[in-house]
Amino acid sequence: MTRSKTPEGTRGRILDTAERMFAEHGVFSVSNRQISDEAGLGNNTAVSYHFGSKAELVRAIYLRHSEPVELLREKAVDEHAGSTDLRDWLACLVRPFTDHLASLGTSSWYARFVAQLMTEPKLRELDLVDVGQTPLQRTVYDALHRCLPDQAPAVRDERDEMARTLIVHMCARRERDLPADSTALWNATATGLVDALAGLYRAPSEV
Amino acid sequence: MTRSKTPEGTRGRILDTAERMFAEHGVFSVSNRQISDEAGLGNNTAVSYHFGSKAELVRAIYLRHSEPVELLREKAVDEHAGSTDLRDWLACLVRPFTDHLASLGTSSWYARFVAQLMTEPKLRELDLVDVGQTPLQRTVYDALHRCLPDQAPAVRDERDEMARTLIVHMCARRERDLPADSTALWNATATGLVDALAGLYRAPSEV
Repeated sequence: MTRSKTPEGTRGRILDTAERMFAEHGVFSVSNRQISDEAGLGNNTAVSYHFGSKAELVRAIYLRHSEPVELLREKAVDEHAGSTDLRDWLACLVRPFTDHLASLGTSSWYARFVAQLMTEPKLRELDLVDVGQTPLQRTVYDALHRCLPDQAPAVRDERDEMARTLIVHMCARRERDLPADSTALWNATATGLVDALAGLYRAPSEV
Repeated sequence: MTRSKTPEGTRGRILDTAERMFAEHGVFSVSNRQISDEAGLGNNTAVSYHFGSKAELVRAIYLRHSEPVELLREKAVDEHAGSTDLRDWLACLVRPFTDHLASLGTSSWYARFVAQLMTEPKLRELDLVDVGQTPLQRTVYDALHRCLPDQAPAVRDERDEMARTLIVHMCARRERDLPADSTALWNATATGLVDALAGLYRAPSEV
């Protein structure tokens, strides 16, 4: 879903503008009025008319992207059903996110937005993102754990947290310096993450 | 350096209050006036009198902690001089940070603060934290790379970024649910990070 192909009127213009401004300046450094101005709406109450609070605007931006990411994940899970290769399940964690970011071209702000959702205290309170929150993500982590049957549950849980943290924050870093050909960059990022996470998950625990 | 032992007067009270409020509510959700009120200063201009801008306040909080962390790192580097064990150099990345956090007891807000410095767009502009920024950190990364002589420079650089990202954001997560005995938690966190990062760095790259 690229923005230019699915005009959503005023609501869509607000979402486009807000997600760019949030990624560039930070969610709490941008006011609803600034978003209205930047979206060229003239009407300073447009944001609250369409979304109510900033929390609702943040939630709408999150859903606009997390839904297509989950659809890509559903396909990936179907594709790898029955696999006992750790890398396949790591790809199910990483690739839906990087493939969605690649589909956004150079208008990609979502990785930096999710990084803020995971880090900013007031955004964390919205409880939108965390490890294995959806049933589909749970399925992926369960399949991944079956590839590591001897790993202690505490170590497994810790590495799940590390994986989720690393995927989001590394993608946010890459998104800040996006080249014109962003697809190649996202592919390399995904491969680098799957390689590194395979080592991270397989590492012996010395405790 | 624990806060109770080194009273620094008004300046110290502002720093203590600001770093707690920044960690709990986010740097851009807290005003200088709120910090003055919470510090019980009565005078609403106390923060700007002592620090000028919010950027200067943020820098002062950062330095108050990064200096003791670097002192701990200097000791660790001396201790491991000549080592060719990857885990020793990973410990030089991880332990100075977790040991400093442990020294703060339950009044620990610094990991969440650094996580915001790495993620919030306006705080990133201050350019306070990034991979291998100090000469001492460079020394650690160089020694670490000598343990992996066959690794391609691009892979090495990517894993350095991953390591730094993972250390800060995992410590920020842990700091949010700190038990009364925080020392044991920080030790376990450090061990878990060194284990996982050893696997991450040693993982073969399939590119």
